[in-house]
Amino acid sequence: MAKYDRYLQLTVTLPDATYPVYLGRGLLQDADFLQEWVSANQAMVVTNETVAALYLPFVQQALGRLTCDTVIIPDGEQFKNQHSLFTIYDALINYRHHRDTTLIALGGGVVGDITGFAASTYHRGVRLIHIPTTLLAQVDAAIGGKTAFNHPLGKNLIGSFYQPDAVLMDLDTLTTLPEREFRAGLGEVIKYALLEGGELLENVTAALHNGLTASSAELTHLIARCCAIKIRYVQEDERDMGQRVLLNLGHTFAHALEGYTGYQVWLHGEAVAIGLYCAAWLSYQCGVLDKAYVDLVDSLLGKAQLPRRIPTHINNDTLCDFMKQDKKIQQEKLRFVLMRAPGQCYQDDSVTESSLHATLNAVKGDDDE
Amino acid sequence: MAKYDRYLQLTVTLPDATYPVYLGRGLLQDADFLQEWVSANQAMVVTNETVAALYLPFVQQALGRLTCDTVIIPDGEQFKNQHSLFTIYDALINYRHHRDTTLIALGGGVVGDITGFAASTYHRGVRLIHIPTTLLAQVDAAIGGKTAFNHPLGKNLIGSFYQPDAVLMDLDTLTTLPEREFRAGLGEVIKYALLEGGELLENVTAALHNGLTASSAELTHLIARCCAIKIRYVQEDERDMGQRVLLNLGHTFAHALEGYTGYQVWLHGEAVAIGLYCAAWLSYQCGVLDKAYVDLVDSLLGKAQLPRRIPTHINNDTLCDFMKQDKKIQQEKLRFVLMRAPGQCYQDDSVTESSLHATLNAVKGDDDE
Repeated sequence: MAKYDRYLQLTVTLPDATYPVYLGRGLLQDADFLQEWVSANQAMVVTNETVAALYLPFVQQALGRLTCDTVIIPDGEQFKNQHSLFTIYDALINYRHHRDTTLIALGGGVVGDITGFAASTYHRGVRLIHIPTTLLAQVDAAIGGKTAFNHPLGKNLIGSFYQPDAVLMDLDTLTTLPEREFRAGLGEVIKYALLEGGELLENVTAALHNGLTASSAELTHLIARCCAIKIRYVQEDERDMGQRVLLNLGHTFAHALEGYTGYQVWLHGEAVAIGLYCAAWLSYQCGVLDKAYVDLVDSLLGKAQLPRRIPTHINNDTLCDFMKQDKKIQQEKLRFVLMRAPGQCYQDDSVTESSLHATLNAVKGDDDE
Repeated sequence: MAKYDRYLQLTVTLPDATYPVYLGRGLLQDADFLQEWVSANQAMVVTNETVAALYLPFVQQALGRLTCDTVIIPDGEQFKNQHSLFTIYDALINYRHHRDTTLIALGGGVVGDITGFAASTYHRGVRLIHIPTTLLAQVDAAIGGKTAFNHPLGKNLIGSFYQPDAVLMDLDTLTTLPEREFRAGLGEVIKYALLEGGELLENVTAALHNGLTASSAELTHLIARCCAIKIRYVQEDERDMGQRVLLNLGHTFAHALEGYTGYQVWLHGEAVAIGLYCAAWLSYQCGVLDKAYVDLVDSLLGKAQLPRRIPTHINNDTLCDFMKQDKKIQQEKLRFVLMRAPGQCYQDDSVTESSLHATLNAVKGDDDE
């Protein structure tokens, strides 16, 4: 693979699958490179309306010699649903795609998750290439093999573990990302910084202070660091039975908020931002985190212009009902990822209802920006 | 596990999963035994209307101390569809089943396949116990981890590989099986006999000659032999990339016939019977099988009172279109499992359209019974 040394390469090594993650600028215009990753003579690109207009032609051109079909779903978390999934299945069947086809997910987390699920189940599993085009998908969603779609009653309730054959990231796609989407991705970057602490937290803090944008030189390094952390967790715990759950820092709150509002109010990374602030507050409420760190989380998220507060109209009991659908529940106990300090997160299943409600009340309000 | 030596036990050993297959009479009335296989405090039984009336109370009684919810789907291959699947998902979510729940598939192949799919995807995978109650499910469907549901355009087009935690077979359930269902199961038994040849073929031939019924003493041995063969193939090739495809003897035809008729004309085992006869004819047509063996297949299936002929109203071209959706297709080539003799099957991707059409014409007609 030496001929691709113009791109940064990481490798995910699992018992049943080893695959590369390439990061670089201009990668989508590299037709020879893209072609490497599609075998046989069929491929189907799944993307959304927004990304299709910008980047689908590059992929189609690269795969020109193949039968390359396309499914374009609407843009938005609310379309990560059963209907979009069956649109993909129907297209695969109608265009007679066989077991040796390749699905290519070109887009953000929604496209990646739902295409991954389709790939894991069509003919009991076909090849899958992720080409994440959002910051959130590049640092988080595209790596690790979690696929899912949403049920009206809860996020990601139906899904599978299914590793892709490659993850190809073109950082240039981030330059066309709406400002709001870029900031939402920073929510996950901050999650990694809190999870890891140390130098990454320092670097992220400095980058946010300096006004990180999609063109910033340090972005490649930051994304690669987040990917490397994600890969480490996935390699240690592919099936999410132990340590990988820490990657869900802030996500119990985030998923409940998204479900509550029908996935229509926040981008996922924005909900994660509120969730990170809630997790910090809950950790403080449980007596394990200094208040100064809660303020640090608030300030980091604020620098990224991300929301931290739960709007006052949200009903705590209803929100808790959504949390009780969370996948991390075992033996009827709610489980939260708490923080003793940045770099010291752990899973706690002894959080009381009263600490939870005190936290929800404390984080209610309007963000001041 | 010595305390269960009143049941015959086989073991499936795979890289990521090892699970037992128990066979016995009266097993469903053995509450202590059933309870062993459900952990945590939640379970959901999925079954169909017919089986629920006969056997659901036994399972409910055994699991009495647990929260045991139930989903009852209509009886029939035409209900192995998206709608039934989402009925299961909705129940799991509405009854707040968590990642440590256990799904119990109580019924035939339809119940087993769709419950297996639900188990493999709900919260990205929960525990699964198969309690197959039909001959077809006991000898074939319940073992090996293939799950699926049907798309209007083709059978089992969407599915997963997901191994159960245990397979529990009570042969007494076969005594309440409608005669037609029992005979359909013999279609798969005959498939194993043709695949294996030798002593199993002799035993099956003798058993059919003697009028095999659900109460026959030799049935336990025959089912165990079929299970052992299936286990051997699955252990060698869990993901169906090589030799396991031979288990599909007759199935390319069978799936196409079922799809063509909307799963409403034949039971799966009946379609397999026609498919086995077609596979024998095609093998003869391709010059690899003696005509005498074609007659042997015809006679064996006839003894089991199973259909062998494709009704004259079936259009060959439309039927071939259904075959071209078959999952075994790679690089656009149809693949068939052919037979040189009983015990000598192989995969062939060089079958010509003209051999195929000649076969379809040759097997058209009405069965004489």
